Amino acid sequence: MPADPAPDQLAELDAFLLELNRASAEVILPLFRAAHGLVDKGGAKGFDPVTEADKGGEAAIRKLIAERYPDHGVIGEEWGEDRPDAEWVWVLDPVDGTRAFISGLPLWTTLIGLRFQGRPVLGSIGQPYLGEVFVGHAGGARRIGREGTSPLRVRECPNLTDAIIATTDPEGCFDGAELGAWRQVRAAARLARLGCDAYAYAMVAAGTMDLVVEAGLKSWDIDCAIPLIAGAGGLVTDWRGAPLGNDGGQVAIAGDRRCLEEALVALKRSAK
Amino acid sequence: MPADPAPDQLAELDAFLLELNRASAEVILPLFRAAHGLVDKGGAKGFDPVTEADKGGEAAIRKLIAERYPDHGVIGEEWGEDRPDAEWVWVLDPVDGTRAFISGLPLWTTLIGLRFQGRPVLGSIGQPYLGEVFVGHAGGARRIGREGTSPLRVRECPNLTDAIIATTDPEGCFDGAELGAWRQVRAAARLARLGCDAYAYAMVAAGTMDLVVEAGLKSWDIDCAIPLIAGAGGLVTDWRGAPLGNDGGQVAIAGDRRCLEEALVALKRSAK
Repeated sequence: MPADPAPDQLAELDAFLLELNRASAEVILPLFRAAHGLVDKGGAKGFDPVTEADKGGEAAIRKLIAERYPDHGVIGEEWGEDRPDAEWVWVLDPVDGTRAFISGLPLWTTLIGLRFQGRPVLGSIGQPYLGEVFVGHAGGARRIGREGTSPLRVRECPNLTDAIIATTDPEGCFDGAELGAWRQVRAAARLARLGCDAYAYAMVAAGTMDLVVEAGLKSWDIDCAIPLIAGAGGLVTDWRGAPLGNDGGQVAIAGDRRCLEEALVALKRSAK
Repeated sequence: MPADPAPDQLAELDAFLLELNRASAEVILPLFRAAHGLVDKGGAKGFDPVTEADKGGEAAIRKLIAERYPDHGVIGEEWGEDRPDAEWVWVLDPVDGTRAFISGLPLWTTLIGLRFQGRPVLGSIGQPYLGEVFVGHAGGARRIGREGTSPLRVRECPNLTDAIIATTDPEGCFDGAELGAWRQVRAAARLARLGCDAYAYAMVAAGTMDLVVEAGLKSWDIDCAIPLIAGAGGLVTDWRGAPLGNDGGQVAIAGDRRCLEEALVALKRSAK
């Protein structure tokens, strides 16, 4: 069994995580719906936007980590890897949903995860325009909003036919086999929502959605959600139902294992 | 030419529109992410959710109108028509995006339009969780937020290849021919966002999106946007490029006529 971090250490890092959210929000928020220095880094692969908010937000987080915990590693979407084999490693996506960000839509999020000995143990999903941070670890999950802090708990949903499910962009993000699997899951579900990026994971933790299905994720897109969803009572797996590794890929985020099992019947057939 | 309302009358009704937004928000907001009395009114047609927020929000608006302007007509999604041929008629969707609302996603909106002699002359898109109301008429459009009021203006986008476009749910809302047209427009555009409902219209008015394409709309889904988008310098048409009538249907909302014209090449072929 891998070791768990000491509770007092985790509590200290949980508080530090909120500092990181505040520091990145100070850089990112003034650039939302403003001149944000959009650059297309996609080239021949198609449109892949990055902004000063992505780069500046991550730089602000890295600066604080380097000052406070110089022995910690960092893996970030914009500024690469720095000691990825350290005992503690921060995994960062300063603006998940850059496409939403540049469209003026307030569902982009700041994702911050922390690994201890290679395993995600703490994570947050922050949406500063909404004044919300969703935080979790094995001991529990909570939502910090303008009006105070409240616990997060997934809801029961034994049947996929009663589930509210989500994915960001079926035709944009799934390959042919994945799209077929998504359509089969969607046809069975009560309701599907699109376009939410990682904000949908927070909705599973909050018990207002039941299942999120994504593919082609990077570790910084999903690492933070693993402890957050676990702390709220849910689970994050690959499309075979196995615990997610450290490389992203095909991901299912669920509040209720029974609902997930039903979806996996379709997802497994397109599992890589 | 149809008559325009007198400026002082429009100013009075513009102020009243903000009262209506506040009154409905007082009913709706406490039910967001709470027990909201969900009922499925779809039956054999499929899931069609309605909540106490929809019904209570519209009732609050209707009560204020009946008190202040007892001779005005009202058309609403939840409580039907009341003198739809009056000189002034309010057109109401208390919670556009009920699916987003029940999923905990803060992109549902309260839509309030006002017709004068059958023509939409004033409209608002409100999102009380974000503390935002987008308001417009022929004289101009503005965004009222927590931090103050600012003018709304569409942006230039001469080419569809540079456009950020949106629709809510391609496979859920379009028929086969419409889906083909959407895919053709999407393939030409820079970026597509999904899942925004009427919030995307506000983003066109704000100049952060360029084109929204929807089909199967009811008058209460779109009426409010006609004066709002016009006031911000954009346009609302059907899929042939003609001014929208009073019955919804296939709709295009654009900031720049040149970008719209490019999209219409594809949309026209699937126009009803």
